[in-house]
Amino acid sequence: MNTSKLLLLPGDGIGPEAMAEVEKIVGFMNDEGVASFATEKALVGGSAYDAHGEAIADADMETALAADAVLFGAVGGPKWDSVPYDQRPEAGLLRLRKDLKLFANLRPAICYPALADASSLKPEIIEGLDILILRELTGGVYFGEPKEIIDLGNGQKRGIDTQVYDTYEIERIARAAFELARTRRGKVTSMEKRNVMKSGVLWNEVVTRVHREEFSDLQLEHMLADAGGMQLVRAPKQFDVIVTDNLFGDMLSDIAAMLTGSLGMLPSASLGAEDPATGKRKALYEPVHGSAPDIAGQGVANPIAMIASFAMCLRYSFQKVREADALEAAIAEVLEKGIRTPDIMAPGATRVGTVEMGAAIRSAF
Amino acid sequence: MNTSKLLLLPGDGIGPEAMAEVEKIVGFMNDEGVASFATEKALVGGSAYDAHGEAIADADMETALAADAVLFGAVGGPKWDSVPYDQRPEAGLLRLRKDLKLFANLRPAICYPALADASSLKPEIIEGLDILILRELTGGVYFGEPKEIIDLGNGQKRGIDTQVYDTYEIERIARAAFELARTRRGKVTSMEKRNVMKSGVLWNEVVTRVHREEFSDLQLEHMLADAGGMQLVRAPKQFDVIVTDNLFGDMLSDIAAMLTGSLGMLPSASLGAEDPATGKRKALYEPVHGSAPDIAGQGVANPIAMIASFAMCLRYSFQKVREADALEAAIAEVLEKGIRTPDIMAPGATRVGTVEMGAAIRSAF
Ligand SMILES: CC(C)[C@H](C(=O)O)[C@@H](O)C(=O)O
Ligand SMILES: CC(C)[C@H](C(=O)O)[C@@H](O)C(=O)O
Repeated sequence: MNTSKLLLLPGDGIGPEAMAEVEKIVGFMNDEGVASFATEKALVGGSAYDAHGEAIADADMETALAADAVLFGAVGGPKWDSVPYDQRPEAGLLRLRKDLKLFANLRPAICYPALADASSLKPEIIEGLDILILRELTGGVYFGEPKEIIDLGNGQKRGIDTQVYDTYEIERIARAAFELARTRRGKVTSMEKRNVMKSGVLWNEVVTRVHREEFSDLQLEHMLADAGGMQLVRAPKQFDVIVTDNLFGDMLSDIAAMLTGSLGMLPSASLGAEDPATGKRKALYEPVHGSAPDIAGQGVANPIAMIASFAMCLRYSFQKVREADALEAAIAEVLEKGIRTPDIMAPGATRVGTVEMGAAIRSAF
Repeated sequence: MNTSKLLLLPGDGIGPEAMAEVEKIVGFMNDEGVASFATEKALVGGSAYDAHGEAIADADMETALAADAVLFGAVGGPKWDSVPYDQRPEAGLLRLRKDLKLFANLRPAICYPALADASSLKPEIIEGLDILILRELTGGVYFGEPKEIIDLGNGQKRGIDTQVYDTYEIERIARAAFELARTRRGKVTSMEKRNVMKSGVLWNEVVTRVHREEFSDLQLEHMLADAGGMQLVRAPKQFDVIVTDNLFGDMLSDIAAMLTGSLGMLPSASLGAEDPATGKRKALYEPVHGSAPDIAGQGVANPIAMIASFAMCLRYSFQKVREADALEAAIAEVLEKGIRTPDIMAPGATRVGTVEMGAAIRSAF
């Protein structure tokens, strides 16, 4: 069995606690002989800033570039609120996305049946929900230049950010959306604001052409991003795959995650292009939730999103479909049994901490 | 009694039907002698494009600039989907906002008790909801330059939009937010993405300073816009006034509107600065919903949002607080009585069309 290189970047807040449970699963898979993972660990975010003065050290970026997959916890917290912009915790994550060229961010929003009650939405609206938000991750207003604050004198400053999309960036994310839709229910909804943004006009035009030329057997629908946000709240099950830009994707995927009532449960995968020589693609896996500094270090964080992110890693980076399915089934089984961290506690359920939740999932695996 | 000049811009789709009910209320108030309105009417959006080749004619812009208030219906529809970008229906609305300098867009999200069931959210989450989204309306990515599509050759194009905010623009919307909060529950939540956007860094800095220097008796909280979107879905009642930029405001106010289940009921007011000489401010009032081309012309559109927008007009442009209160009470009373247009129909209620709904509100007024 070839050994695969995993880089673990636990980050800040609850990141390390959640990552510890994934490490145990990795160890378990190695021990059982179902996988051969060599793991390395490094700092990212505020903890990297404290150690190196940067949100990720150059040497660790090298390791990330050489790894078969990166597992990422979470970054940030009030401790680093006044760190300079270029060194802020998020800069580590943004550099990873950009330098690993992870243009496709997959954010499944599924509603675990055992947790349907936890949603603020009516059960009939979200029961059985299974949609996928595909967010463009290396372009748009996150990275466009100029991005600066100019001093205009007289006490006036000007803050500028630039939204930029080139045809090829829209083409590749559109293709990824249609390819994913083909493995699902065959429908793609593209969201932009073409009525006010030129990048939205181009986005709409390119997605339409890619559909017509390469995927005309699938269903394509366009929605303005504001109307799309409303439809997500009104009737989320109408969607299958939603493809959208970096900033709309940030907003819409968070809203979709919150709909499910399963925020602490939702994983994400960020993928690069396939290298034609090796057939491999760079990838980073991270939970949708943040670093939750308010509960960090108390042993109560929910590790499920981190573990589900590792399941996506098994599926997308290592084609270990059986193991990914088994890990996801183990999560669902543990939830069915009523084992719950405080964030998803319900009447009559058994309240556990991070470590017990990890152990329960390992033993159901 | 001084005569006040109202410009009516019914627009496209259901705009004219909804506006007709407001005209009757205006006529009724004139007849009863409680007001003296002189109304003019003009085209905007697709219907203006069909007539003049522009989404609003220059002469009508002059009338808008001279009016005491503008009432706006809705614009757009599939008929104009391939009209050139500069002449598209939305361009008329954007020009009105920009040329009248309507920087403050007030979007109340309230849940009418009679309609709490219509929401996709659980009743306990939205019952009694009363929040106000204050959206900056003349800046940001809507108007920043460059805004263009460049041909790069080789089949590649580049779409560019620019988000720009100057200190003074943030100061005035922040002041408006605090002044509104003072008449409400005294809490302002400012939303941006300072972790990825320089305009967000400046936004955060200026709002913080305005609070400290001028409104330190009120409560200010900051939230990242993606987290804010989630919190809106999870627990909207935690908010009082939310202040945010043009694009985030577009998304967040639509989501807030949808939460209430009362989308067809929600009004908005767009206000300019007070003229120090006259004490007057330019203003435009419009429903949050769109032109709904699918049901236009059938006499089934819900005119309540348009009528509620006129109530805001009475309140903010003409200080007719008693009349505004009475009109809003009339809407609530009609809903309590179970009189419903098809979009808000419920078991046991009485189904009516646009004209009957308008008549019912007038007779309760
Ligand atoms: C941490 C932050 C930079 C990030 C983003 O805005 O992309 C986060 O909100 C996310 O959605 O992954
Ligand atoms: C019609 C469109 C230009 C407009 C906007 O994006 O501002 C609308 O969505 C709104 O919210 O008023």
